[in-house]
Amino acid sequence: MLKTPYLLFLGDAPDALSAKVAQGVRDWRPENCVGQFRQEGCKADMGLPDMTIEEAVAAGAKTLLVGVANRGGKISESWNVAFEQALAAGMDVASGLHTQLNANAKLVAMAQEHGQQLFDVRIPQQEFPIATGKPRTGKRCLAVGTDCSIGKMYTAMAVEKTMRERGMNATFRATGQTGILITGGGIPLDAVVADFMAGAVEWLTPDNDADHWDLIEGQGSLFHASYSGVTLALVHGGAPDALILCHEPTRTHMRGLPDYQLPSLELLRDTALVLARFVNPKCEVIGVSVNTAALNDADAEKCLQEIEQRMQLPATDPFRHGADKLVDALSAL
Amino acid sequence: MLKTPYLLFLGDAPDALSAKVAQGVRDWRPENCVGQFRQEGCKADMGLPDMTIEEAVAAGAKTLLVGVANRGGKISESWNVAFEQALAAGMDVASGLHTQLNANAKLVAMAQEHGQQLFDVRIPQQEFPIATGKPRTGKRCLAVGTDCSIGKMYTAMAVEKTMRERGMNATFRATGQTGILITGGGIPLDAVVADFMAGAVEWLTPDNDADHWDLIEGQGSLFHASYSGVTLALVHGGAPDALILCHEPTRTHMRGLPDYQLPSLELLRDTALVLARFVNPKCEVIGVSVNTAALNDADAEKCLQEIEQRMQLPATDPFRHGADKLVDALSAL
Repeated sequence: MLKTPYLLFLGDAPDALSAKVAQGVRDWRPENCVGQFRQEGCKADMGLPDMTIEEAVAAGAKTLLVGVANRGGKISESWNVAFEQALAAGMDVASGLHTQLNANAKLVAMAQEHGQQLFDVRIPQQEFPIATGKPRTGKRCLAVGTDCSIGKMYTAMAVEKTMRERGMNATFRATGQTGILITGGGIPLDAVVADFMAGAVEWLTPDNDADHWDLIEGQGSLFHASYSGVTLALVHGGAPDALILCHEPTRTHMRGLPDYQLPSLELLRDTALVLARFVNPKCEVIGVSVNTAALNDADAEKCLQEIEQRMQLPATDPFRHGADKLVDALSAL
Repeated sequence: MLKTPYLLFLGDAPDALSAKVAQGVRDWRPENCVGQFRQEGCKADMGLPDMTIEEAVAAGAKTLLVGVANRGGKISESWNVAFEQALAAGMDVASGLHTQLNANAKLVAMAQEHGQQLFDVRIPQQEFPIATGKPRTGKRCLAVGTDCSIGKMYTAMAVEKTMRERGMNATFRATGQTGILITGGGIPLDAVVADFMAGAVEWLTPDNDADHWDLIEGQGSLFHASYSGVTLALVHGGAPDALILCHEPTRTHMRGLPDYQLPSLELLRDTALVLARFVNPKCEVIGVSVNTAALNDADAEKCLQEIEQRMQLPATDPFRHGADKLVDALSAL
């Protein structure tokens, strides 16, 4: 678990998109952000106070969180200087970059010297058991998609937020590096060894209060040729009581697979339900989360209505219109 | 790839079952076995000439293959002495044990000194790419099961053997440590990092002659809560043209999951086909392989007839009755 609150490191981000991890933390855990650290040329802005390392430590920051993606896999020298300053000033450093902090001998030595930690959240921090398939107490909801990168994380985040606003007992469970950085904990499922995937998901979503909801971050898609195995481990390890189908209506092919059309929502519903019910016979599909970012207001509205009629399920864009429809359906289970 | 032929190391195997890896090599690759190496108290016998290390080297043996499972994860001192002798005499040593040969510093040093290799086949020997989902030339058959440890490897082995006897162009593709030791190559799929599982299977079954069959060793089951993700990576990475359903009619619950009934053959057929056809629309289920080891001749025959009628598919126990029915069906595709 990462120590909060964070100083968000934006570095010399060339545009807003390259700082999307920082944006995620800002959007979903504003209470965990004391400020932002920007270097010369930075084009991203989270609307947080700009702070030096020293000012952030004085404001209580415990972790410098790398909220920007680097180009070409290299960490620039100016970034490393800032990481060293943070360690020397008493902060941990956490990153989801491909290039590991722990591969930099100077940073490792400085962390040791100052008693701080370097977190590479793409790397599992522990060994996981083989899944047992045993029922657990509490309730679980998993977002499954017609494709990768289609809004599954934002859907689970939005449902958690709405549930908490209603005073419900809910926890987002991160299964990827962005989610881990945003919430401070979770498992980088795509980096877990195959035999232990489902066991890692069981570990992440243990017995809980009867009225507690785990909102499990989905990964990949049951129909994505590259990553479907990771998705099925989530379906069986998560043993969800509820599935939310996630879709992006304007996508012309599956991500990274130019020759693959997306599966229909009906095919996803039927296939995911058969597999999920083998482990949790009570599992239901409770709604559709549609990423309408590419549509104007009228087209988004039309698209959602069409999907509601066709699927006979509540459909919403939880980022655009809120997650109330989905939370209503979950509460009614 | 392991160097052949092998000297099969049986050690002090307390019974025949503990030497099942050696039995698999003996059954499926007798041409790769020059002899067996037994220690005091050994209760297993492959019917091969007993040889000392020196005799085996003189007979051409290139690899000492550990064909026996150890109890409690420890390798006894007498085993290590034999491994050291083999290295000194000019043989590689290959093992699928949980305890790694490469974790033994003395063996590592001796292997280096003598220019020999230690193979721990449970550990992937390389990095694999992300799967591309692109069609490949040649044909592929995958065995999928209603459970783990139900005869998928023996089914693929038996189909390969019958195809080769008929002069067909066929290769068994190992995806687990026993299959790797038997055939000398393959991937330990359950030890591959999640994101690369399907890519590893694509790598294992590359473009080939139009009339060539890959017989892919299955793993787990699409309905096994612990390992289903590994299975789906095989279905999508293998992009099979043909599926063989594997079943054991007397099993009362899924392996390691006492509260789970096996799925029906119908459920397995329908679910596997939907998922497989998303990557290879031509995929067909061509037959059922039934492990009848627990049945007498009359009951086995009755069971096979019942399954043939119910499923309208050829059904056979390929280890007991040969794989001709399955090869006929594959040839007719």
